[in-house]
Amino acid sequence: MSTRQSGAPEYELYYWPTIQGRGEFVRLALEAARARYVDVARLPAREGGGERALMRAMKDAPFPPFAPPFLRHKGLVVAQTANILLYVAPRHGLVPRDEASRLRAHQLQLTIADVVAEAHDTHHPIAASAYYEDQKREASRRAGAFVKERIPKYLGYFERVLDRQGGAHLVGRSLSYVDLSMFQLLEGLTYAFPRAMRRQRVPRLRMLARRVAAYEPVAEYLASERRLPFSEEGIFRHYAELDAA
Amino acid sequence: MSTRQSGAPEYELYYWPTIQGRGEFVRLALEAARARYVDVARLPAREGGGERALMRAMKDAPFPPFAPPFLRHKGLVVAQTANILLYVAPRHGLVPRDEASRLRAHQLQLTIADVVAEAHDTHHPIAASAYYEDQKREASRRAGAFVKERIPKYLGYFERVLDRQGGAHLVGRSLSYVDLSMFQLLEGLTYAFPRAMRRQRVPRLRMLARRVAAYEPVAEYLASERRLPFSEEGIFRHYAELDAA
Repeated sequence: MSTRQSGAPEYELYYWPTIQGRGEFVRLALEAARARYVDVARLPAREGGGERALMRAMKDAPFPPFAPPFLRHKGLVVAQTANILLYVAPRHGLVPRDEASRLRAHQLQLTIADVVAEAHDTHHPIAASAYYEDQKREASRRAGAFVKERIPKYLGYFERVLDRQGGAHLVGRSLSYVDLSMFQLLEGLTYAFPRAMRRQRVPRLRMLARRVAAYEPVAEYLASERRLPFSEEGIFRHYAELDAA
Repeated sequence: MSTRQSGAPEYELYYWPTIQGRGEFVRLALEAARARYVDVARLPAREGGGERALMRAMKDAPFPPFAPPFLRHKGLVVAQTANILLYVAPRHGLVPRDEASRLRAHQLQLTIADVVAEAHDTHHPIAASAYYEDQKREASRRAGAFVKERIPKYLGYFERVLDRQGGAHLVGRSLSYVDLSMFQLLEGLTYAFPRAMRRQRVPRLRMLARRVAAYEPVAEYLASERRLPFSEEGIFRHYAELDAA
């Protein structure tokens, strides 16, 4: 695993090396921008990578993050997924220039972050530190409510926003980091809850996700080894018993 | 309920009129800044207030929020608590001017938002739409993990950050919105989990909270009728059975 472009990397991304997780929202933005970055923990340990390098960098940061992902750039260490995107996107034309659009983009990104946290808690409603197997009964109840109430509420909201914006982009008139994050959210929810997702009537969001996937830098990334698969180690997990009929 | 300053209000805050909730982080910033604002839903219905005014404004916004709180200012409607603070704070000197400090402040605010969401889920681990009484057993398990693992982990982290910054302020050399939010977080956790909070060794955070409470605009606010009490309708709820020994 190394940078996709030649030349010295501009960004160092620090995230768990074996999952998409929250880091994937940052990876997608960097990839869509064709930014020169290195996904540090995915490097072999002998090249300064691995989880120990991740933990060391987190501990040594002058203003330490609470958790990965975090991004190093020009002496700055920026943590919290939405905050990283707030920092990176304007540097690569991935958000409009005007303040109103930037606030809207961030507002949507934070709402996406809320869905992601709720999706995580469907399989860990009691404690992130405990096994899924030790909270299966609670997970079943929480996932039931998530599928029945929360997915339709959130996606219905995003569909309405997209409709009001004309259907092409969630914010502004060209691809923004929020479009990328929406793609990732839909991918994750579809992986975890395929039956529930088939029932959602969100044609505009689906069309947006297809366009994002076809955007050349994203398409190249998705076809590469840099794109990790979804799995039951990540945030979006497929447990058939949680995907109610 | 009206603005605390004379003159036309500059900001319109929209939030549930009977609870502190997430809106309180915004109220504290506006109060600390002595900003001219109106807490719209707290006005009587005949003066354009109440919950119906809140719902109407949310629905009618050109770029609608997913949920309260949201702030109207100069034709903008800004939603998501941390996003509102990101917008308001620089206008009132409640965050340093340099980019690094602003990113750090926002990073901490988003981490505070994560704790707040987890604190909410201690009493609603299954579904926000269901009664506490219908998820008491799960709440007991989740609160147990929150008290044992999450409170010490988060507060330990914030204490370390504050220590590294010299102990006076979380970001920069004067009061910022993050100091205000940290005060509110500690107040909320202490209301909900008094026994658990007595066990936390976070002397710097406690001293910071005392200084925030004594800051004149904040002290005036806390002593006023504008400050709503904590209650079992809000995010931080005191249920003795969730506050493990």
